[in-house]
Amino acid sequence: MTRIAIIGAGPSGMAQMRAFQSEASNGHAIPEIVCFEKCSDWGGLWNYTWRTGLDEHGEPVHCSMYRYLWTNGPKEGLEFADYTFDEHFGKGIGSYPPRAVLWDYMKGRVEKAHVRPWVRFSTPVRQVVFDEPTGLFTVTAHDLENDRIYTETFDYVVVASGHFSTPHSPNFEGMDGFNGRILHAHDFRDAVEFQGKDVLLVGSSYSAEDIGSQCWKYGAKSVTTCYRSKPMGFKWPTNWEEKPLLTRLENRTVHFADGSSKEIDAIILCTGYIHHLPFLPDDLRLKTRNRMWPLGLYKGVVWEHNPKLFYLGMQDQWFTFNMFDAQAWFVRDVIQGRIALPSQAEMTADSLHLRALEEAIGDDADSIRFQGEYVKDLIARTDYPSFDIDGVVDIFLEWKKHKKEGIMTFRDHAYRSVMTGRMSPLHHTPWKDALDDSLEAYMSDAPLERVANDSRFNPDEDFAPLVRRAMSGRI
Amino acid sequence: MTRIAIIGAGPSGMAQMRAFQSEASNGHAIPEIVCFEKCSDWGGLWNYTWRTGLDEHGEPVHCSMYRYLWTNGPKEGLEFADYTFDEHFGKGIGSYPPRAVLWDYMKGRVEKAHVRPWVRFSTPVRQVVFDEPTGLFTVTAHDLENDRIYTETFDYVVVASGHFSTPHSPNFEGMDGFNGRILHAHDFRDAVEFQGKDVLLVGSSYSAEDIGSQCWKYGAKSVTTCYRSKPMGFKWPTNWEEKPLLTRLENRTVHFADGSSKEIDAIILCTGYIHHLPFLPDDLRLKTRNRMWPLGLYKGVVWEHNPKLFYLGMQDQWFTFNMFDAQAWFVRDVIQGRIALPSQAEMTADSLHLRALEEAIGDDADSIRFQGEYVKDLIARTDYPSFDIDGVVDIFLEWKKHKKEGIMTFRDHAYRSVMTGRMSPLHHTPWKDALDDSLEAYMSDAPLERVANDSRFNPDEDFAPLVRRAMSGRI
Repeated sequence: MTRIAIIGAGPSGMAQMRAFQSEASNGHAIPEIVCFEKCSDWGGLWNYTWRTGLDEHGEPVHCSMYRYLWTNGPKEGLEFADYTFDEHFGKGIGSYPPRAVLWDYMKGRVEKAHVRPWVRFSTPVRQVVFDEPTGLFTVTAHDLENDRIYTETFDYVVVASGHFSTPHSPNFEGMDGFNGRILHAHDFRDAVEFQGKDVLLVGSSYSAEDIGSQCWKYGAKSVTTCYRSKPMGFKWPTNWEEKPLLTRLENRTVHFADGSSKEIDAIILCTGYIHHLPFLPDDLRLKTRNRMWPLGLYKGVVWEHNPKLFYLGMQDQWFTFNMFDAQAWFVRDVIQGRIALPSQAEMTADSLHLRALEEAIGDDADSIRFQGEYVKDLIARTDYPSFDIDGVVDIFLEWKKHKKEGIMTFRDHAYRSVMTGRMSPLHHTPWKDALDDSLEAYMSDAPLERVANDSRFNPDEDFAPLVRRAMSGRI
Repeated sequence: MTRIAIIGAGPSGMAQMRAFQSEASNGHAIPEIVCFEKCSDWGGLWNYTWRTGLDEHGEPVHCSMYRYLWTNGPKEGLEFADYTFDEHFGKGIGSYPPRAVLWDYMKGRVEKAHVRPWVRFSTPVRQVVFDEPTGLFTVTAHDLENDRIYTETFDYVVVASGHFSTPHSPNFEGMDGFNGRILHAHDFRDAVEFQGKDVLLVGSSYSAEDIGSQCWKYGAKSVTTCYRSKPMGFKWPTNWEEKPLLTRLENRTVHFADGSSKEIDAIILCTGYIHHLPFLPDDLRLKTRNRMWPLGLYKGVVWEHNPKLFYLGMQDQWFTFNMFDAQAWFVRDVIQGRIALPSQAEMTADSLHLRALEEAIGDDADSIRFQGEYVKDLIARTDYPSFDIDGVVDIFLEWKKHKKEGIMTFRDHAYRSVMTGRMSPLHHTPWKDALDDSLEAYMSDAPLERVANDSRFNPDEDFAPLVRRAMSGRI
């Protein structure tokens, strides 16, 4: 029987499983599917843990998310075409739900599909090797619960392990002697830790913007961000400033490229992530920086040098969940023999053509449209439910405009679902005042206000009232 | 030509290289040696980095040490028999030098031996497989600088990768919702971060004792340690208390098994390390908790199931550097054919005999003597320079007594080297007042006092004077 190994049970791996389950539910025969998942639960980045660095088995922690994280783009941009938010929650919800709400949504679809038995949890893949004579992959996996390493063979391998989990951490002069904490965004967990602190964020992309906003929201004394090429340029609160890149540290003093300096308590490296695939040999391993069109992947998914190997979600992303779906359905249909692949030379030529288009991208709007066209192209080739992709592009453009208008208020906007045609309701509390990020608080019809009656409430605590509310946890 | 792979260039791997170089310098032919080292420099745990979690290549950080770390046992207990402290430093130094001084010492020996060219830096081993028909090991290594994964074959493999780098991190109820920092001792870097904080250390072994002392020394508001089985029982400073194990967390409140609770800013898990050897298949992988006599290793080093594989330093340790030497010399002589191994059954019987002795160990003094006898047995079998091992046992017993007398003053004692017969001088500054841990400050004849003249000195800083001095770095 044909066997498929999926590496990772995050959004991409879930999409691949759902694609095959959909095929089976339509009465078609499907291969045996084994999904290897390093963690003890699924959801990838969305599966929160308090742990940082290495996990309970000594494996690198996958989660890069943190408490109080809300989506930084509208949920209408990532909605599944085959499973709407309305279907999952049974009512309309705001456009920027917190992590727990999104995690619940993505799990709902694959629970409905009953594919969880396909997943081997707590089982990282140690090595994948392709054997020319047999045309099979040998996958070496580590069953961590039983500390057993074993190999199995597969006809196809789908790499769905993500690329926002392994930090890129540059060194700066003086880091060895800095008397405060230095951490990468990957290890950031709870903004309340930085209450009353002068925090420096190195970087000018989503991590810097969002972790800085978290620190501001939960009471950091000041937020400083520094950039290599250009400032983010949003309208920041008064205790937030942007500086050019730091040049060196001296004890607790940070020096910047413009000659200025500042005393800093903690440095958060928001310097991005690397594609880290140490389980793949040289001839199967994608090597790329984070960009819209990595080379070597026909249609963004087929490994051109060996088209029995596939990668999902390895691009930089505007589109996410529904793009992973579009990719997974395409991969499924290649494996099912429904989509014929051209020759390697033709695949490479196609990729190079798209690389040229990628390199001609001007601004973010171009980039969003580029990815929109890619998703359209994929969806046209499978039975994944088609949807108004231009409408989603418009939502992303609106979102960019709302961020420009107010970086601390853009999450108070609502958007219309292209899947249901329904407008999202406004959330009951503005984002900057919504300190409780639990599913329960979010799903309630009005703010939960139980703090004053909470026996844990201590009015003498040295925290601002809003922060005190947050600290009481699920209030 | 016979080829040997050594995995790791820390104290154990260095010992193995030095053992072979010594053999060569005595005019004997030696195999080709390749030492694979994950980090960009050698020294293992002693090679400090500010990084935590994952390193610049996405590999788990090996270093578990921190700024201001001084040896927690007398240097006379770990002195090399073939390279004394006096030879390296050209003068007597105190008995508890800081990390940088020890690192300098261990590097001095292997630099003198000119073995650095044997090391492939930034090259973790991904997999080791033994091939029965050829009797060779295939080692898969990852050249991180060039992002190239390759394989080579070897006749022998020596695992010297240590077992104090992969944290054991238990979960406690409420950790997901704790509003402070949670870290494992492995990720502790700078005690000054915890100045003015209420710190909880979970555990009652060396990490809890030493990291707690660091936090106390550099100005933590309070130190709380909690134990599973029994308190450490030292005479703690007034702002340090011992509690039974925590049971659960609620926001910032920690509840203990005795029903008491405390508000805590940071939790440091001093809960030990696991043997983590994911690059070895089941038939070659040592599985053990940290103990004096792991099974499966004849004479503590020969893998009984395949005596072409060796392990160094996998035991819990009183003896360290010179025990690794004793092991490395023994392994060398097995490979050189100078020491004949008995049958597998005899090796296993010998190990089981030693396990029975280990299980009869009563107190720490017994345990120290047990390991002393082991080192004696090894050294008697090779040309490693013999030394007064009973004398070293006595030094360890003195050290235990000094700790009992004063946990914050034991490092102010000095001991006599069994290698040179010379008494160590007293260091110029008591440990609790010596805030500068640099090699320069330690090697000077008197405390360096340049703070007041340092242009970086800011008397308005909100820190105690001693801490301020420490924060000025290499004062």
